Amino acid sequence: MMSHAANPILVEATRGSMVESFHRGRYVVMKADGTVVAEGGDIDALMYPRSAIKPLLAIPLVESGAADAFKLEDKHIALACSSHNGEEEHANTVKAWLEHIGLSVEMLECAPHYSIHPPAGIKQAGDQITLTKAHNNCSGKHSGFLTTAQHLGDTPAGYINESHPVQQRLIKVLEEMGDCDLSSTPRGIDGCGIPVIGMRLRDLGLAMARMADPSGLDAKRIEAIKRIRKGCAAAPFMVAGTGRFCTGIMEECGEDALVKVGAEGVYCAAFPKQGLGVALKIDDGTQRGAEVAMGAILRQHGVIDDAKAEKLKKYLTPVLTNWAGKYAGDMRPAF
Amino acid sequence: MMSHAANPILVEATRGSMVESFHRGRYVVMKADGTVVAEGGDIDALMYPRSAIKPLLAIPLVESGAADAFKLEDKHIALACSSHNGEEEHANTVKAWLEHIGLSVEMLECAPHYSIHPPAGIKQAGDQITLTKAHNNCSGKHSGFLTTAQHLGDTPAGYINESHPVQQRLIKVLEEMGDCDLSSTPRGIDGCGIPVIGMRLRDLGLAMARMADPSGLDAKRIEAIKRIRKGCAAAPFMVAGTGRFCTGIMEECGEDALVKVGAEGVYCAAFPKQGLGVALKIDDGTQRGAEVAMGAILRQHGVIDDAKAEKLKKYLTPVLTNWAGKYAGDMRPAF
Repeated sequence: MMSHAANPILVEATRGSMVESFHRGRYVVMKADGTVVAEGGDIDALMYPRSAIKPLLAIPLVESGAADAFKLEDKHIALACSSHNGEEEHANTVKAWLEHIGLSVEMLECAPHYSIHPPAGIKQAGDQITLTKAHNNCSGKHSGFLTTAQHLGDTPAGYINESHPVQQRLIKVLEEMGDCDLSSTPRGIDGCGIPVIGMRLRDLGLAMARMADPSGLDAKRIEAIKRIRKGCAAAPFMVAGTGRFCTGIMEECGEDALVKVGAEGVYCAAFPKQGLGVALKIDDGTQRGAEVAMGAILRQHGVIDDAKAEKLKKYLTPVLTNWAGKYAGDMRPAF
Repeated sequence: MMSHAANPILVEATRGSMVESFHRGRYVVMKADGTVVAEGGDIDALMYPRSAIKPLLAIPLVESGAADAFKLEDKHIALACSSHNGEEEHANTVKAWLEHIGLSVEMLECAPHYSIHPPAGIKQAGDQITLTKAHNNCSGKHSGFLTTAQHLGDTPAGYINESHPVQQRLIKVLEEMGDCDLSSTPRGIDGCGIPVIGMRLRDLGLAMARMADPSGLDAKRIEAIKRIRKGCAAAPFMVAGTGRFCTGIMEECGEDALVKVGAEGVYCAAFPKQGLGVALKIDDGTQRGAEVAMGAILRQHGVIDDAKAEKLKKYLTPVLTNWAGKYAGDMRPAF
């Protein structure tokens, strides 16, 4: 299923005068017509897109008319596309959103956890905050699912199961956007309980290229994609949170870079100005590898120029420090 | 410096019906006479041994007579070899140890952090514990350094610098045990502030083989090594802590398996019954990769039999779950 031929080294971690660790992976940069602009490794092998496809999964929320019917704002669209930190601002916004559409956090089918941003998690523990399902890093996506279900009259319960109309719509969108048949590809379960669908990296790249350049799609989808891109650019904190790569890049680049992380070393991006989509997967599943590789792609395709790169240094080539905060090494791209 | 030829896949992470991520690396299993019993990847390339060599770094503490002079117990020897969780029991034992030898936690030159065992860290935050340097996961090793310095009359301050007698003794021990010249290999800084010394994986394997079978060494070193092995086996909680691979394996295997993790995907082991030493490094630096690879080596060389393997399943082939605790996939060896 998965090719065991070695993919190229995309990222190195140095310590002192030596490369200590490194990350192999595969990536594709594509145009909406299917042209491959840049690639590395086996782009035809399957992968699980994980949360990196949340902007694609938000399409039914907008396209169905649910977002308009419930007068959702940019922050809600951004949350629907998010893997947020579970900071109080995220959880509170999700809670208010669900109440606004006549539902409640108890209807979310994801499990609570402390904020994945360590200082925020420590503060929540110190403040003895009662965690709710709204603190789950995927609660915004789930709220988007519930909003769509509510608008279209689906029974909300069980919305995380593959047979539920919510999930069926998502698979259809992925197939349409990636121009692929996902009916018999591998299945798994995601951290938040929804199915993950095996997909070729190349097909995911095409889907993201169409997010960047939807001109060949029908009018309703074009409009939905533009609204999703605008929502994320307008509320980048809601897409991730304090200290996060997705938020930092989008705060600086606005609509020029829709970037979204997924678990196990996945990253997706859409660059509307260049009309390019990106999909990448680090073999070993590490987020640090995926971020630095995505940073290099943002640089290589002109989305981040030298001036922006200087400001975004801590995301593009993060420094490794010890517990005392002293410099120990660097993360750097190797392709 | 580091070879870029692909090392073999040692560990796979599955999700549903697919391998989602995998970890390449290199390992060597050796006898004390230098014979290689098993190997994978480039064992002659350099690596940083990180904390996996703490049992070797404890040799001067015992060999110098410091451990006897201060009547150290097994728990102190185990702490000297530890990368502990920073749970209260670890921090309190370190504090009492330093006071017992006439020093204090303030003399430690490592930085405090919340417990690296998430439930313990959350509890510390909730209880508003004041963190001290004794909570640093390397505080036991540092206390061993201070004890040796105190016994031999070194000025304690600056004991983390390479020029300090404490560090010079450690480099000498590594050179003797690994039969290698480390005078001009790469240098870096560790998470706790001490120097890390570039070493060939093969030489580290030899040093660990001599920990397993020290019969060719001088009497004082043989005695020191036996005491270190006994101390770790008698107090495995102190070597790591709740939920940790090192602790779990040693609780079950006792003196048959001295196993020690290091940062960036390093693991070392000594199997006295088989007279074998092990050194392994996962290319990408992930701990999950290193643990599952070490688990396979423990199985392959008869240290863990079928009955023990059943009990130790959660360490050897851990299950991946989602936030709700539902099964999502497996970690498994691939060599």
